[in-house]
Amino acid sequence: MSILVVGSVAFDSIETPHGRVEHVLGGAATFFALSASYFTDVRVIGVVGQDFTAENEAVLSRRGVDTRGLEHVAGKSFHWTGSYLKNLNEAQTLKTELNVFETFAPKIPAAYEDSDFLFLANIDPILQANVRRQMPSVKMVCGDTMNYWIHDHRENLNKVLVGLDALLINDGEAKMLAGDDNLLRAAAKILATGPKSLIIKHGEYGATAFFSERSFVAGESAQKNGSGKAASLPVPFRAPALPLESVVDPTGAGDSFAGGFFGYLASQPEVTLSTFKRAMFYGGVMGSFAVEKFGTERLQQLSREEIDERFSRFREMSHLD
Amino acid sequence: MSILVVGSVAFDSIETPHGRVEHVLGGAATFFALSASYFTDVRVIGVVGQDFTAENEAVLSRRGVDTRGLEHVAGKSFHWTGSYLKNLNEAQTLKTELNVFETFAPKIPAAYEDSDFLFLANIDPILQANVRRQMPSVKMVCGDTMNYWIHDHRENLNKVLVGLDALLINDGEAKMLAGDDNLLRAAAKILATGPKSLIIKHGEYGATAFFSERSFVAGESAQKNGSGKAASLPVPFRAPALPLESVVDPTGAGDSFAGGFFGYLASQPEVTLSTFKRAMFYGGVMGSFAVEKFGTERLQQLSREEIDERFSRFREMSHLD
Repeated sequence: MSILVVGSVAFDSIETPHGRVEHVLGGAATFFALSASYFTDVRVIGVVGQDFTAENEAVLSRRGVDTRGLEHVAGKSFHWTGSYLKNLNEAQTLKTELNVFETFAPKIPAAYEDSDFLFLANIDPILQANVRRQMPSVKMVCGDTMNYWIHDHRENLNKVLVGLDALLINDGEAKMLAGDDNLLRAAAKILATGPKSLIIKHGEYGATAFFSERSFVAGESAQKNGSGKAASLPVPFRAPALPLESVVDPTGAGDSFAGGFFGYLASQPEVTLSTFKRAMFYGGVMGSFAVEKFGTERLQQLSREEIDERFSRFREMSHLD
Repeated sequence: MSILVVGSVAFDSIETPHGRVEHVLGGAATFFALSASYFTDVRVIGVVGQDFTAENEAVLSRRGVDTRGLEHVAGKSFHWTGSYLKNLNEAQTLKTELNVFETFAPKIPAAYEDSDFLFLANIDPILQANVRRQMPSVKMVCGDTMNYWIHDHRENLNKVLVGLDALLINDGEAKMLAGDDNLLRAAAKILATGPKSLIIKHGEYGATAFFSERSFVAGESAQKNGSGKAASLPVPFRAPALPLESVVDPTGAGDSFAGGFFGYLASQPEVTLSTFKRAMFYGGVMGSFAVEKFGTERLQQLSREEIDERFSRFREMSHLD
């Protein structure tokens, strides 16, 4: 099944203990699309400026990503400058130049209207809601957000959360969104605001999925239960992350996780608890590749064999038998 | 098989967001022994003062723990006062009164000499080495340590590390011991100093085991490999922790983990990669129980059924099928 992703296609200038790069291809939608492209068809909606070259676009199209929804306008592309010199686990933003992204108004090409899955990358929740409304019949919607929207645009964000099948955020964002420092309580509070499931990413410690009684998974449990009566929810699911000897550049790890997660799910005939769990593993796998090189470099050169080999490693790392 | 544990038997005064307790039974050896007692025979070596009552000792003996190695001397028992009000994940030590522990010189009763396994809880590495020397024929030795010994008593600690089958420490201690902020590199550096395997505990994110080429597990891999040639080491193993709604008192979680881990291993006919992995799960299980009530309260009232039920939950939480 195909995935439509809306989000930033940008340039990043990054410094990490391993070096620095200037104006390399980045953006949440780019990382997501490249990552998901190893599993299924991906379509991108975003906006870029005149500095976005044919070669930049070819990075996506070579991976089969449909870029017809990538709007080219006058001006410069979104440009993020960040540093990981102080803390490899948390980016320090040095400069955010929104440029053409400031007036981004997502338009959905007719050719995208039959998309099966929708991923709302981390952008203004007003735009997320806008895209969601234009795609009323998608089968599954996942979304991301960040501290800025949680803190200053809560009301708009709440309208997006209600419609999500899965929200993907990190520990800090989850605690902020719930106003609770305990992860389990925070998860319960967030699920009560709308998302049917919640994936909290713990960086090098992996990620945990929590399910609400409205999730597909609850239905599945009820079926398994056989009675149709109130079934107990599945326990949270914890997927590991690979301990890496060298994290070259953490940029895009979360979006790559989302791409692996959602891409794998879209490639499966059905979303079940079993495929959801595997999708979490593939998310971790893609995140672990993304950080091995600067920018999107590693995500451009993978093979499905490498991906599945690492999936097996994740399984071996976390399974008793 | 039986386990001999040497370490502190103490009193704790603790404040957490859930309340405060004064002068309750604690100490690394106490938590370890209670936790391991659900799996195998445990013998304790430690020292207590006149404030240590018959009822205190009964807490251990009711769980079948052999306390003949518990030396009673004049003076007061070790008393630790700590607070988790600022950070539930890291104790703030308010007061350390070593008392009778200051001149602790572990003596091994004749009845303990046939102990199969040895656990060196977090005490002065000189004492750890001393006990290790007196037990030359134990089958497996595990140990714990802490920042103070890592920082100020490195040379003595190094002599202990060389003889360990498994070292159990937390993230911060591992990074400090290795002088490296990257967990995988830190693990490799620590394994190079002697321990055959290393378990790094991540608190609510679980724990990871790393294996050196000298570990039993390497031999097992070589056998599986069939060739007898250099076999690849097993990948690190990640065991989950249970996300808990309410952590009442984190004191003793690490020692309870160690007790579950080592206790389960000692209960098995053989230490293999498979039993080692299960032991990691039991470690997490016992740690998750310990924090549910103040002090050792929860560890006093468990049943093996509850323990195995939670083990199943850990499996369900982390396994694809």
